[in-house]
Order: sequence, then structure tokens, then C-alpha cells
Amino acid sequence: MLGAERGLKMTGDDFSFEPVSGFDLPRFAGIPTFMRLPHVPLTDPRAAQVDIGLIGVPWDGGTTNRPGARHGPRQLRDASTMIRFVHPHTGISPFRLVRCADLGDAPVNPADVQDALARITGFYDAVVDRGIMPLTAGGDHLVSLPILRALARSGPLGMIHFDAHTDLFDGYFGGFRYTHGTPFRRAIEEDLLDPERVVQIGIRGTMYDGEDIEWGQAQGVRIVMIEELMERGLDDVMAEARERVGQEPTYVSFDIDGIDPAYAPGTGTPEIGGFTTFQAQRMVRKLNGLNLVGADLVEISPPFDPSGGTAWVGASMMFELLCVLATARDEIG
Amino acid sequence: MLGAERGLKMTGDDFSFEPVSGFDLPRFAGIPTFMRLPHVPLTDPRAAQVDIGLIGVPWDGGTTNRPGARHGPRQLRDASTMIRFVHPHTGISPFRLVRCADLGDAPVNPADVQDALARITGFYDAVVDRGIMPLTAGGDHLVSLPILRALARSGPLGMIHFDAHTDLFDGYFGGFRYTHGTPFRRAIEEDLLDPERVVQIGIRGTMYDGEDIEWGQAQGVRIVMIEELMERGLDDVMAEARERVGQEPTYVSFDIDGIDPAYAPGTGTPEIGGFTTFQAQRMVRKLNGLNLVGADLVEISPPFDPSGGTAWVGASMMFELLCVLATARDEIG
Amino acid sequence: MLGAERGLKMTGDDFSFEPVSGFDLPRFAGIPTFMRLPHVPLTDPRAAQVDIGLIGVPWDGGTTNRPGARHGPRQLRDASTMIRFVHPHTGISPFRLVRCADLGDAPVNPADVQDALARITGFYDAVVDRGIMPLTAGGDHLVSLPILRALARSGPLGMIHFDAHTDLFDGYFGGFRYTHGTPFRRAIEEDLLDPERVVQIGIRGTMYDGEDIEWGQAQGVRIVMIEELMERGLDDVMAEARERVGQEPTYVSFDIDGIDPAYAPGTGTPEIGGFTTFQAQRMVRKLNGLNLVGADLVEISPPFDPSGGTAWVGASMMFELLCVLATARDEIG
Amino acid sequence: MLGAERGLKMTGDDFSFEPVSGFDLPRFAGIPTFMRLPHVPLTDPRAAQVDIGLIGVPWDGGTTNRPGARHGPRQLRDASTMIRFVHPHTGISPFRLVRCADLGDAPVNPADVQDALARITGFYDAVVDRGIMPLTAGGDHLVSLPILRALARSGPLGMIHFDAHTDLFDGYFGGFRYTHGTPFRRAIEEDLLDPERVVQIGIRGTMYDGEDIEWGQAQGVRIVMIEELMERGLDDVMAEARERVGQEPTYVSFDIDGIDPAYAPGTGTPEIGGFTTFQAQRMVRKLNGLNLVGADLVEISPPFDPSGGTAWVGASMMFELLCVLATARDEIG
Amino acid sequence: MLGAERGLKMTGDDFSFEPVSGFDLPRFAGIPTFMRLPHVPLTDPRAAQVDIGLIGVPWDGGTTNRPGARHGPRQLRDASTMIRFVHPHTGISPFRLVRCADLGDAPVNPADVQDALARITGFYDAVVDRGIMPLTAGGDHLVSLPILRALARSGPLGMIHFDAHTDLFDGYFGGFRYTHGTPFRRAIEEDLLDPERVVQIGIRGTMYDGEDIEWGQAQGVRIVMIEELMERGLDDVMAEARERVGQEPTYVSFDIDGIDPAYAPGTGTPEIGGFTTFQAQRMVRKLNGLNLVGADLVEISPPFDPSGGTAWVGASMMFELLCVLATARDEIG
Amino acid sequence: MLGAERGLKMTGDDFSFEPVSGFDLPRFAGIPTFMRLPHVPLTDPRAAQVDIGLIGVPWDGGTTNRPGARHGPRQLRDASTMIRFVHPHTGISPFRLVRCADLGDAPVNPADVQDALARITGFYDAVVDRGIMPLTAGGDHLVSLPILRALARSGPLGMIHFDAHTDLFDGYFGGFRYTHGTPFRRAIEEDLLDPERVVQIGIRGTMYDGEDIEWGQAQGVRIVMIEELMERGLDDVMAEARERVGQEPTYVSFDIDGIDPAYAPGTGTPEIGGFTTFQAQRMVRKLNGLNLVGADLVEISPPFDPSGGTAWVGASMMFELLCVLATARDEIG
Repeated sequence: MLGAERGLKMTGDDFSFEPVSGFDLPRFAGIPTFMRLPHVPLTDPRAAQVDIGLIGVPWDGGTTNRPGARHGPRQLRDASTMIRFVHPHTGISPFRLVRCADLGDAPVNPADVQDALARITGFYDAVVDRGIMPLTAGGDHLVSLPILRALARSGPLGMIHFDAHTDLFDGYFGGFRYTHGTPFRRAIEEDLLDPERVVQIGIRGTMYDGEDIEWGQAQGVRIVMIEELMERGLDDVMAEARERVGQEPTYVSFDIDGIDPAYAPGTGTPEIGGFTTFQAQRMVRKLNGLNLVGADLVEISPPFDPSGGTAWVGASMMFELLCVLATARDEIG
Repeated sequence: MLGAERGLKMTGDDFSFEPVSGFDLPRFAGIPTFMRLPHVPLTDPRAAQVDIGLIGVPWDGGTTNRPGARHGPRQLRDASTMIRFVHPHTGISPFRLVRCADLGDAPVNPADVQDALARITGFYDAVVDRGIMPLTAGGDHLVSLPILRALARSGPLGMIHFDAHTDLFDGYFGGFRYTHGTPFRRAIEEDLLDPERVVQIGIRGTMYDGEDIEWGQAQGVRIVMIEELMERGLDDVMAEARERVGQEPTYVSFDIDGIDPAYAPGTGTPEIGGFTTFQAQRMVRKLNGLNLVGADLVEISPPFDPSGGTAWVGASMMFELLCVLATARDEIG
Repeated sequence: MLGAERGLKMTGDDFSFEPVSGFDLPRFAGIPTFMRLPHVPLTDPRAAQVDIGLIGVPWDGGTTNRPGARHGPRQLRDASTMIRFVHPHTGISPFRLVRCADLGDAPVNPADVQDALARITGFYDAVVDRGIMPLTAGGDHLVSLPILRALARSGPLGMIHFDAHTDLFDGYFGGFRYTHGTPFRRAIEEDLLDPERVVQIGIRGTMYDGEDIEWGQAQGVRIVMIEELMERGLDDVMAEARERVGQEPTYVSFDIDGIDPAYAPGTGTPEIGGFTTFQAQRMVRKLNGLNLVGADLVEISPPFDPSGGTAWVGASMMFELLCVLATARDEIG
Repeated sequence: MLGAERGLKMTGDDFSFEPVSGFDLPRFAGIPTFMRLPHVPLTDPRAAQVDIGLIGVPWDGGTTNRPGARHGPRQLRDASTMIRFVHPHTGISPFRLVRCADLGDAPVNPADVQDALARITGFYDAVVDRGIMPLTAGGDHLVSLPILRALARSGPLGMIHFDAHTDLFDGYFGGFRYTHGTPFRRAIEEDLLDPERVVQIGIRGTMYDGEDIEWGQAQGVRIVMIEELMERGLDDVMAEARERVGQEPTYVSFDIDGIDPAYAPGTGTPEIGGFTTFQAQRMVRKLNGLNLVGADLVEISPPFDPSGGTAWVGASMMFELLCVLATARDEIG
Repeated sequence: MLGAERGLKMTGDDFSFEPVSGFDLPRFAGIPTFMRLPHVPLTDPRAAQVDIGLIGVPWDGGTTNRPGARHGPRQLRDASTMIRFVHPHTGISPFRLVRCADLGDAPVNPADVQDALARITGFYDAVVDRGIMPLTAGGDHLVSLPILRALARSGPLGMIHFDAHTDLFDGYFGGFRYTHGTPFRRAIEEDLLDPERVVQIGIRGTMYDGEDIEWGQAQGVRIVMIEELMERGLDDVMAEARERVGQEPTYVSFDIDGIDPAYAPGTGTPEIGGFTTFQAQRMVRKLNGLNLVGADLVEISPPFDPSGGTAWVGASMMFELLCVLATARDEIG
Repeated sequence: MLGAERGLKMTGDDFSFEPVSGFDLPRFAGIPTFMRLPHVPLTDPRAAQVDIGLIGVPWDGGTTNRPGARHGPRQLRDASTMIRFVHPHTGISPFRLVRCADLGDAPVNPADVQDALARITGFYDAVVDRGIMPLTAGGDHLVSLPILRALARSGPLGMIHFDAHTDLFDGYFGGFRYTHGTPFRRAIEEDLLDPERVVQIGIRGTMYDGEDIEWGQAQGVRIVMIEELMERGLDDVMAEARERVGQEPTYVSFDIDGIDPAYAPGTGTPEIGGFTTFQAQRMVRKLNGLNLVGADLVEISPPFDPSGGTAWVGASMMFELLCVLATARDEIG
């Protein structure tokens, strides 16, 4: 009897846009892609069939304090192998609704900020060219800027932004204007975002001087501080947020530090007194039915949580984001 | 200007049997395969061209105390992305000498020992059928048994075995005969190994009763306790080991717990007073020129070293093993 | 003057069924038994006097992903030495209400699932024979099955089950039916549980396909998803649960992963968005007055939380369970 | 061109009572003082200008179980370099309202309890002599006693005390009366506190026998157990607390173990089921307008949370305390 | 069929002075005593039969910097459950040569140094009264002093002392004379040690002023600095040490910080550049045949190595010490 | 009695160039400066009296893989508070030989490489202007370049360089020439180093292609691979190194990754098979008597070793470097 006949049920070989099941292959086995999806590089002809692309941007060149978010995509892929198929609350199975794939990582340059931004935009341009909706795993929050540069070709987008910080600062260290505290100021200045359709939720933490908030509010950005969120409740705030962005194209940016550091310690700029993961899940679910064009989950810094617990929170939130993106994508057809 | 023109240098797209370079793509980027080699499943037609296959066996069903080696292959893949191309001492570049690939993980079953052993042997049968020389990342040490079942088709093999333990026990817990303390007793009983051509190096640690050593010596196994290794020196011991196995087909099994736990704490059964990584590297280099048919690196248990330091030792030792395997393979032509 | 006269106040010597006090012996001192209770093996004649036995089942042979729960009992014993005597809310002192003891660990076999199940049931048979009510520290969730086999001699039991998962799956890896995802399907099939009197609380996390939930509901199991728990509130849900199980004999199974992983990260299959420890404590307190016949606390995996924080949550929850068991036991007289 | 002309913008050189900004010097740079304030030893003539002094008391000689709080001040200083200038909710900038400085650490003696208490009181006497209001970073909770000895010169103080424990025990280990479980019993006995104006909030955890609570209540101490806090809500409880202490001089003692260990695991005597950091922040903010004379934040034990997360919670709570102290100090003028 | 007949092979029930075997009960199971020996409190009549008693002294009241050694005995008991029966090099089985037992922990007082010293001496007096040879697990190094007070009744002892520090200091913090830096100065002053028969091996690390070394040498203590040890080699140094202590009664004190912190990081006062575990094992083996009266292994501080690796080194060294003590005890008969 | 009379012995108040003693103030107390030396900013007039300045450069903008060395100086200061006064082998007390001070951190910019390099050189220019010899704590290895730019004003320096890597690469990521892999190529190109007087010791690890070594050797750099070091022995290699650099001005650069990662895991680019700390200490001691002009200790990355063990190795090596610098400085007079 030949070996091939003795038990050759190989792993991960047959191509499909479905994840490998934990019933067939244990979750700790196999090369880790996002949610155990097939890896489809942009140069692969099958990329043309992809509806939603999960992409890593392993870069933290905008980080002003504690680095490490460059290691985020890899730890997120690892953790995401524990994700199963179906959403427990809505019953949505994104992998059956649309074709999902892991597109790999965008090219980056840890040694030069501007070159890195250009490389990332280049990659997302190619994603957009192929009609793929991107779900990104950062990286620090500055990666949202080059993504928006590719996504906002047809005009400024709305944005629902979960975070402890506004990221609306002007500059650091005597005028350096590209850091993870500045992406949305740049995006508004560059007309990538329509400030009237930007809602920021969960803002808190000690402030430098409040200039970021003042500037944002002057542009029309709606900033929901954590106290307001807790007092009004999620449903009320999310209803307002939905109304703000309306049915125009909208991006979702989820900074893991919006969640309380007890739940997500592995991040560079934690602020105590945040929302829980249960609250985070409910808020993202409330995005269902919006005209979403992409989303990112950023600022997971593995060296600050080697246990991987934060990455597990991040992978779980990526699945929540994927479900609402899949619904949006499915509606486009 | 289209996005594709703005900066589309994609990552990991063009097929070759060479690893991705850290000069091009930062080491923390990309989906982690062993040493950043291409992933070539056995069902891929390109598998027929592979000379040496790096394979994970994510299974620890034979572990009698501290489990976790099932998570070894993934952490080893992650760590191995820091491996470069060329051996610093010998100048060998295994990736240029022969065609290497990551074959993925063998199928396993965490819920049943015998089923798992059958699945693993089935996979290695298919590897052998394709003429691929396997370099395995465990898993606990019981995985060596199903591998040897596939490799020793044409007769018993010699083996050079680095370890703190003989793994020549008979049974545990009232007669259970398949654990990570028994693989080589089974292999000798099954005629997969020629005991006269088996050398065990680094044995130490408190003993149950010494029956394992007595049995092994009675079969002709050469057991080099750590004291003898330290007193005679590596060169002398390795010269004897080379002479013992001669130019007949020989397997190499490297249990990470052979190395002192200060260097490699992430393992299930550490024993203090072991050899250093420098000594480990030198010993493996002394295998160059033997008629090697495969090798494994086992017993890395990530939960006991979340820092990944042990996996880095393991990945570095896998590179040392790969270099001597590549030389052997290259000579076959 | 002889030494014995100079200061011989020995530790832990005089027999009683009370724990050693932290006022007398610092909490870090002494050999760690559950809650510093005396160790009374079943073969000790004093076992006949024990009302509630605290038992470890150090086994995780049913674990399909991240192992380590076999180390749970030891870490729980260590953490439990910080437990004092009296419940802060109810004023109950279980150690004065009934006679408690640490019965040691049930015998197990890490190398064979069926043999392990038989050994565990054998031990619990002996516990039941002696009229001892068991409070178990796991081990993975499959240990509930052999316990129920011993406890349900006189007919199927009701069960209140706190968990993120239903553990009502049918099989894994091509038909393997005994894993930590299947115990209660087996228990219902074996008539150990009356599904109409089973309530599961806290269920969440991505699903394979929902077959477990459908099967359970078809049998009559009441499954309270986390959203329902959060929306209705604990008191309402617990009132329903009490009504469901009524005054017939009822078992309590508490999987630590029911609690949110921010509170209890040291477990094999964490799911974000769970309940807090405060909520967990309140829910268990609501079990007071039921006809309880035993309880378990399972799935603490020390390698995934070396800090011991999860074990401290577990030990604290075991005390909560002990208080409601002691009340039930006291009523039997 | 001389070096000094090439780029000499030195760090931390010019004296002012303002912290160094993270816009100028990255947060990870510089010698860590509390909140990046200037270090002004009591012997420095500038000490006479200080309004509020931040002081470390690196001592844990009163700890009966898990030590390490002696390392608290250093880790708190490190974490506190992430604090910015302005309170996000109230808009208060304590550093502009009053003159703040890091006074360094009080002298201690790890080898003798009574000598340590005397040294600490001596230091705080000097602080009080200079008219400085102290905000202390412990150390274990026994450090509150020598501080109160210095602060209560003109008569017993009121106290709002956040904690999981009453710290009203009488003695340990056969009569040892100075431990971290006894400071406030001693303080009431020594007439440093007016028990009718003492409110304890968050008390929970298993009890020895409840004697501490009975004694406290007999003296008139108001003890708010965690269940009452959760059921009535923070606002109601804090309103009562404010009324109790009135406008007489009041001290604030914040034991980090009042906060749930999911948020603050790095402490010696954790008790599950506590309040969140968001709740802690809101409660401290409710102290605004009281006649506060000082505050402490104690029981952070770095060896039990090497990640520094607990210290970050502590530093953030110190900022909350500083804001209400600054308001109180500012009103004195 | 009754439960007791179905599989009742209980654990740890039958009394014997042999450890439980890992072949019968997995190493992670059971209540952890030293080396899985029976727990025999001094008040148990069987204590009279004990030849060598393994004792914990969970106390670190003499620690001047990083505390935590009070938690040492518990972590050492846990780690020691991985010890088997027979010495791999000498073939000695201490458990068969003499009767060994775990005597539990000596009573201590974390709140008072002098009271703690008195309690410890009282316990060891009772040990000596029963003719038991003690092998102690600390605790910080000050615990050697009260042990020597009990052991040196008939005159000063010789001592072989492995350590990075001389522990011959006079006092700290303005005259405090009982710390873990002073035990052997006190012991020499109290005539518990004969300085001419004291050898200290491995001394290194930056010095205060060298007064400790000068004082020791003036008394006749032989101090072997690490450089001398490395240059002369172990065999030569140990031969000299044996000659120094001769055949008079000799104590062995092993401070874990003698071993390099790469091997044993979990200690309060690490000094780089130490000896390896292999060297430590060889040195202790060279004590065979001396007239040994007891030994201790001190300064393991679990909070500084939660992985337990240092405790595993310590437990392994305790086994080495036990083997040479057993030989000495066996010769007395 | 006033407070000031009750016990006012303040800490760290009186100015001197000596460290605070651990006999007076416990090592865990006080604001952490390098080796507890006084903090003397360059703008302080006392800076003119400083002979050797200990300086932090908290920057890792040149790191191509795992970042975090920016946090090195702070963790090194913390660890260095355990350093005492006198060298145990040579008896040198650097603090008495010359005037030492902590000069604080050089200004940096985490958001721009070239700006950061300019700021660092500006700071060191000012140091050199004041006649201060710098001992630097990095930071990644690129920080050596701006330091050399300030130190090599009068001509190229010799260098003894301990490292696993040559840091002689040309560029990364398509031509980026300023990374931590390129500083000494740039320094040789800029005539800051005389390649004939550069010795690199400990080089190892897998290679890209060896171009760095070839280029270096072509310039005349002497590269001692680890195998040569181990085979010839330290004394022989160091004798050659001393001869190479002769009595001309020489810099010392010590990359912590030269030491084996078992000893120093907290670094970005570990390579197994390195030298021990004992060997490192001996090698640095062999530098005594050379004409040294400065030294650095770089590449400690705290996020990869939160235990601080690597920083303790680093602080201990800084003391070794300080001793040989102090001798050199003392000779200048």
C-alpha cells in the first residue's frame, strides 16, 4: 500500500473562499492567515474575484511613544484562527455572503515615513482598482491616512471613528505633521473626509490643551466623549451617528485603545475608563445597513501584550466589522 | 495615474524557491512560513520539485506532563522569519543548494493518539513518495515515531539524537505505551531504528529507575550522558557518533530540551545542567557529510515561553539542521 | 531549655474541618490545599464524616485547541489559600455550616481519553458512596461527564450551566465524540441530564453553524445568550432559571470562560463580551435554596495566565459555589 | 561652528512648576518624576513655593501576604510620564492652578516597622511645616498612618476611603498591631480620624469574622459595601459621602485594590467583583469642592504586574486626585 | 457494581516514605509536597522515624531590596513534583537510602523580625530534638541564622557557602543588624560558625566598600571570588573547600543567586557573571562524604520569575543537596 | 516639637558627585538616575566640573525589525540603582576616581531620522565642548553615528566593538542608508572611524550575503567571528584588539546582542550562540589602560524583557565600561 493511500487527507489544499474549519483542522494547525481564509496576493488572478480583502499594514512609523504596532498584523492573523463562521447574534456568515480573502500585507518602510505612506497608498490603489473592499489590520493609526487617500478618490467620505483620542492634532516635536496623532487632521485638510460626516466615539484621557477638539468641532466633527457615551447609552449615540453619516459612503476606523485597557492592554497609548468589549460589539453591530466602503482596526502592539489577549479582542472586532462590511458589500451586489 | 502605477511592488507574489529577503520586506511583515519560504502543499504540482520540505506537526498527544508543543510549529514559523540566507561559519546557503519549501502542517487529531499517529504517517508517506527529504518542527517527541514509520521503509535507520532524555521508556500510567517518553523504544521494537547505530547525546536529569538506559544499552544504543559530553568535549563525542552511524542512512532528532533551560525554557520537561546553544550549533555542524535522510526539532512548547525566545533557538537550530540536510541532499543530486 | 519549649507552635497539625486562619499562619505559608482545608483522602476513615468534598480533576484530554487545564487544580489550590471564612454579603460560613475537606485529585490518564473517563467516574462513585457532595475544580469541561455519570445514579439531573459555549456539539475531527465541546450532548444522550431542566447562561462567540444550539433547543434546553442576559438583567434571568430547575436535584457547572477574558484570561477558548465577576458572583448567589447535588468550576488553564489572576477568580467563584452547596447540604441535615 | 550652536535645545533644564510636554520631549525620554514635574527636595529653597507636593513612600513593611508595594513609587513615576496637562471632563489644569512638584521619596526602613513609621512621619511633618499639601504614592496601606500623624495635628480629620478592605483590623499573628490591615483602627484610636466622618466605599471579599466591620460601625464609620454601591449607584453614594464629611478638613485614601483586579491586578490582596476605572474616576471627581487636606494612592505592587498597567491606572487616578486637591488648595489661596 | 469497585485506585493514600511516582500519578496531579514526599508534621508520631526533613521557611523579613522570597517554599514544592527517584550520575536514591518527609513550613511572622527569628529557631529546635537532619527551602538568607542557632548547639559548625555575596555585612539603614546581608556575621559573632572552617564560593558583584570581605578574611573565612573559581576550576576549589571543613560537622548554604541570573532570574539581588547550573551540580556532588548536618537553599523570589524556571533550578539543586545529605545521614546509621 | 526635628533626614539633597548609598537609602527608593548619581543638565553650571557624563539616547528610529530600544535609557536607569561603588575584581571606584553625573537624555525625534541624528549630534557637541567624556545608554545602534560625529572632530577614532552583527550594511528597503544595520559603514565613509583600528568581536548569526563582512575587511576592519573568539579564548583576542587600536583615541561600542540571548533576551535582533556575561565582563576589563574617549551600550529593548533582567546586564556592563573610562580619564588628569 502506498503512503498516499494510507491517509492522505491534506490540509488547506483545495481552493475556496471559505475558511478552514476547526472541526477538520485544529485551530492551532496550519499557516495562519486572517480567519483561516485563503491567501490571495493581488498578483494572483483570483484577486479579481475577491469582494472583501483582509489586509495587514505592519507599520508604526507614526508612533510618538510606545512602538510595536508594526507587529500587529501577524499577531492578529494568529489570533484570528480562532474565529468560526457565523455571527452568534445576527446569524450572518460573511464568508458565505461574499468572497473574502487574505490579501497579505501592504508594503511598508520602517525607515522613512513619507516613503511608507506612498507605498501603502500604492497598494490600496491597486485594491480599489480591483473593486475590493478593504478591511485593514494595522499598524498604528497613521496608516488610515494612506488608505483614505486611495479610498476617497470620488470625494470625501464620512467616518465613524471609535477611539480614546481624536487624532486631530496638528504636529509634534516642533512641527512634525505625520504621526499617529494627526491622521484625521491631515485627512480633513486633504478633503478625504467630510468633517460634518465624521463622528468620534469614546474620546477621553488627559489633554494637552484641547486644541485638537476645538479644531475638530470648528470643522463640524461630532466628538462624543466617553462620559456622554456612558450617560446617554450606546443605542442613542449610535442612532445619532448613523443619522450623521447617512447613506453616503462611510469608512469605519476602530482604534483598539477605544476599548478599556483592562480588555485591550496591548496598545501604545492606553487611557483608562473606556468602554467594554461587549459595548464595542454592540456599537459595531449598529453599523449594519450603512453604506460602508472599508474599515480598519489599528494600534494593537503585541510587545505590550505577549499573551495575545488584545489581539484576540482585535480579531473578534475584525469579525464584527467584517459582518457589517459584508452586508454592505452584498447589497452592492 | 492609476494606483497600480503609483507604487505597486507587491509582496510574496512571484514564485521561487527562495525566501523573501529582509532587505525587501521587513521581517515582521507577511504571512509567516518557515524561513519565509513559499508554501507548497503536497497537492500543488510544484511539490514534485521540492528537495527538502519543512513540515509542522502540531500535536502533543503524547505529553505526560506539561502540554503545549502542539503550538510549536506556528511559533517556530513566526520566529523563523528572522532567519537570513547564508550560514555564517560554513558559508552554505541551503536555499541555493537545493529547492526548499514549507509544506504546511501534517494532519493531526488532538483527541485520539492512534488516529493521530496514522494521519501523520500518511502524510509523511506522501512526502517520501514525492522524494522530498523532511525537516520537521514538532510537536512532542512522539511525532518522531510516525515519521520514522514513513522514512524507514527500506530498512532500519541510524539516528543521532540530542536530548536530555532517552525516550526509551516502556509505558506510563499502567501500561500506556505511546507517550513522548517511549517513541524510540517503539521504533527499535518496530525495526525502524538500528540500535547499534543510535547515539543519544546530552542525557541527564533525575531518573525513575534507569530501566530505560539499561534496556537501550542492552540493545546496543550508545548513550552519552551530559557529564561525558562535558568532560570529553564535543569534538571527540561527535567523532565517535559519526563513526557509529557511518555512511548508512541516518536520521537526526533534536529535542529542544537537550539545550539547557536557561537558553530554551519553553519546553515541557526541562532538565537543568544542559549544553549551550553554541555547543548545540557546533554539534550539528559536525553532522555535515553524513548520509542524512531527515531531521526533526521537537518539544518547543510556546505557552511556557510566550516571549518566543525558545522558538528563536529552535528556528536557529532548524537552520543548522537544514544546512547539513541540504549538503546531504545535494550530494544525492 | 529544650527546643520544643522555646516556641513550638506547629502549623496545620491538629485535625479539624476548619481552614487554617491567615491571622495565625500567613497565607503564603503551608502546603496548599483547597481553601486551607485539611486533606482527607477517601481511604482516610475521616472521609466518612465529610459533607462537602473539594476535588481536583487535573485533566484536559478533551481539549481541542489550547491545552493546560490539567494544571488547573494545583493553581486553584494555591490561589484559594487567600480565601477567608465568611461570605461578605450573606454572612454564610460554609466551613461552620458543614464539614468540608480537600479530597485530593481524582486519578487521571493524560494518554487515553476513555481510560481517563473511567478512572474519574470510579473516583466519584466512591465519593457518592460515602455520601459526600462534590465541588470539583477542573480540568477541561469534559470532566463534567464522568462526574455526572456518578452523580446521576438515581435519575437525570437538572443543571444550571454558566459558559460562553453550549458544549452540545456532536463531534470533531471526523467523528471524535468525546471532547470538551461535547460533554452535555453525551450527558443528555446518556440520560444523565434532563434537558428540560438545563439552563445555559452567557452563550456567545462566533459559531460553527449553530447546530449545537438547534439540537439543544430541540431537546428542551434553555439557552440564554449573552445579549439576553445583558438586556433582561441578571435577576430576571436567574428567576427563570430557578423556576426551570425547580426543587429537583440540580447540578451547577461553571466554565470560567463564561466570565469575560479581561477578568479571566487563563482559559483555552476565550470569547470576548462576557459577564463580569461581579455579575458572576450575583448569579451564583441566586442559586441559594435550590436542591443542589454538586458543582464544578472548569477550564482554568494556568499556562495562559501565569500571574494566577484567573485562578484567583476561580477560587473566589468556588467559594461562592461552596456557600450555596453548603446551604443545600445543611438543609438535608 | 560650535556644537552648542548646532542644535542645543537641552531637556528639562529651565526651572518652572510645569511638567515637560510630550509635544517637546517624547514621553519615554527624560528622568521620570511624577507627571514630569520638577524634582524639588524639601531642602531646596524652592520647596517653600510648592503648593502640592507629590511624594513617594516606597515601603511595604506592613504587608501580611504578597509584598512589593515598596516598588510602587518608582513604577508610578514611570507610568505618570504619560499624563498630559488638562482634565478631559472638567477642563481643570492642576499645574496651572497651583504650584506642583515632585518632592522625592520619604525616608523608610525596610528592616524595622516602628523606625519606618517614625521616619515617614518626620518627613511629612516637614512637608506640613512648609505648608505643602501632600499627594502620596505608596507603599502599602500602613503608610497612611504616619501621614495622618503629621496631617492631623490640629484635630481629627474626616476621610473618604476607597478600598476593598476596611483596614480596621486589630492585629495579626498573635497581636502584631501595625500591618496594612490595621492603619485606620490605629488612626481612630489615636484620634487622627473622626470616625463619624469616615466613609469607606467598595468593601468586599471574604471575611475573617466581620469583627473589623462591627468595630468600625460601632465607632460610627460608614461602610458602603460593593453591593450597596452597585445598587444605589455612584452619584447617590457620593452625595451621602460628601454630606458625611461636610466642609471640615478631609483626607482621601485610595487603595488600588478598590478597583477590580481585571483593571488593577498589580496589588497584594486583590478581591474580585470591584468597581471599574470609569466608576473610580467619576467617584473621585465627585470630591470636587470638599475641604481636602491631602490624599494617597496605595498598594500598587509592581512585581505582580510587570506590564505596568496597574501603575498606569494608579497614575491616572493620582491625576484625578490632584485635580480635586488643586481645586481645594486654590480656594485656600 | 459499586463505585469503589469500578476503578478506585486512590491517590497518595497508603503511607510510605517514598515519593509518588510519575508513572502512577501524573506529575501535575496531587497536592504538592516537596518531591511528592509524605507530609509529616512534627506533631505526627511518624515524625520520630524521619531521617531527613524537608522544611519551608516562607519568610523574607530580612530583605533590603526586592522582596518575595516568602513565596519561595510554595513554588519550590510545586516545581519539585518533577523530581524523580534516582541521581543520574551517582545512582544514589536518597528516598531509599534514608526516610525523607516534608515537615511543612516553619512558623513565621512577616510583621516582626525578632519574633520571626524566635519562631523559626523554636521549630528547628524541635526538629533537632527529634534527630531529624533539616534540608530547608527559604525564604531569604537571614533564615540561615535561626536555623544555625538550633543546629550549632554542640559547638560552632563549618560551612560551605555558595553565593554571589558574603552576607558578612554589619548593618544597614543606620544600624539595623538583622538583614539578609548580615546572617553569617551574626553567626560568627554568636559562635555558631567556626570562621576558619567557612568557605564562600562564587562571590562577585559591585561592592559597597569591601568591609565585609576584609572582616571575613580577618576572621579566617576563605572567600573564593568568581574569577578564582573560573580560573582554577571547580575541582581544585572544591578539593580545597573539603580540606578546609574536614570531617567535622558542616552545614551547606546555597543561595540561588550564586548561580548566574540567566539560569536563575527569580531572586532579589542578582549579580551577572555567575556559575552555571552544570557547575553548581558538580560542586554540590563534590560534597559527598563530608560530615554534613543540614543544608538550605534560599533566596528564590517567585514574583521575579513567574515562569517557575528558577524554582525548577532550586528544586533540582535541593535534590543534589538531598543526595549528599542522605549519604552523610546513612553513614551515621 | 516641630516636624523638622522629629526625624528630618531628607533623601538625595546634599550635592556631591557620589551616588546615594544603599546602606542609607534603600535601592528601590528615590528618583532613578544612572547609578544614583546626581542629575546635572548641561545648562547647570556644575556641568563644567563633570569628568564623565552618563547620557541616555532614547531613540530607535533606525530599527528595521523589533522596536523598543527607545525605552532603554529609562529601564537602564532603574536597573542601575542596584549598582554599588567599587569594582569587585579591580577595586576601582570610578565615582571616587573622577566626577561622574547623569546628564539626562539627549533630545530626539521619533518621527524623523535625519532630524533626530542632528539633535543628538548637537547634544554631544555640547558635551564635548564642556570636556566631558560620554558614556551613553541607547537607543538602537544608529545612535553611535551622531555620537561619533561629535567625538571624532580631531580625526578618525579607533573602535572596539562588541556585537553579533557588523552593522556595516549599506542600505535597506531599496536604498535607505540610515538604519541600525549601517552606522559603522557611514562612520567609516565619513572618516569618523579609522577602519584599520576597528575591531569587531562576537559576530555571528545567519547572513544576508556577507557583503557587509567583505566590505569591512576590504577597508581593513578586523572582524572576530564568535567561533574564533571561543577557540582562541578571550585573552588572546583581546590582546590582539589592544594592539590594533594602540594608544590612539579609541571608542567602545557595546551592543547588548553580542551577549547570548539567554543572558540578554531584551533586544531587537538576538542571535543564539553568543558569549556569556562573565566573558563580556572579562573582555571589557581588558580595555583598561587604553586611550578611551567614550563608550556606548546599545540595543536594550525593554518591551522584549519586561522583567528587567537584560537591563540589569546592561547596567552592570555600563559599570564595567565606566571603570575603564574612569581610568582613562583619570590619566588625562
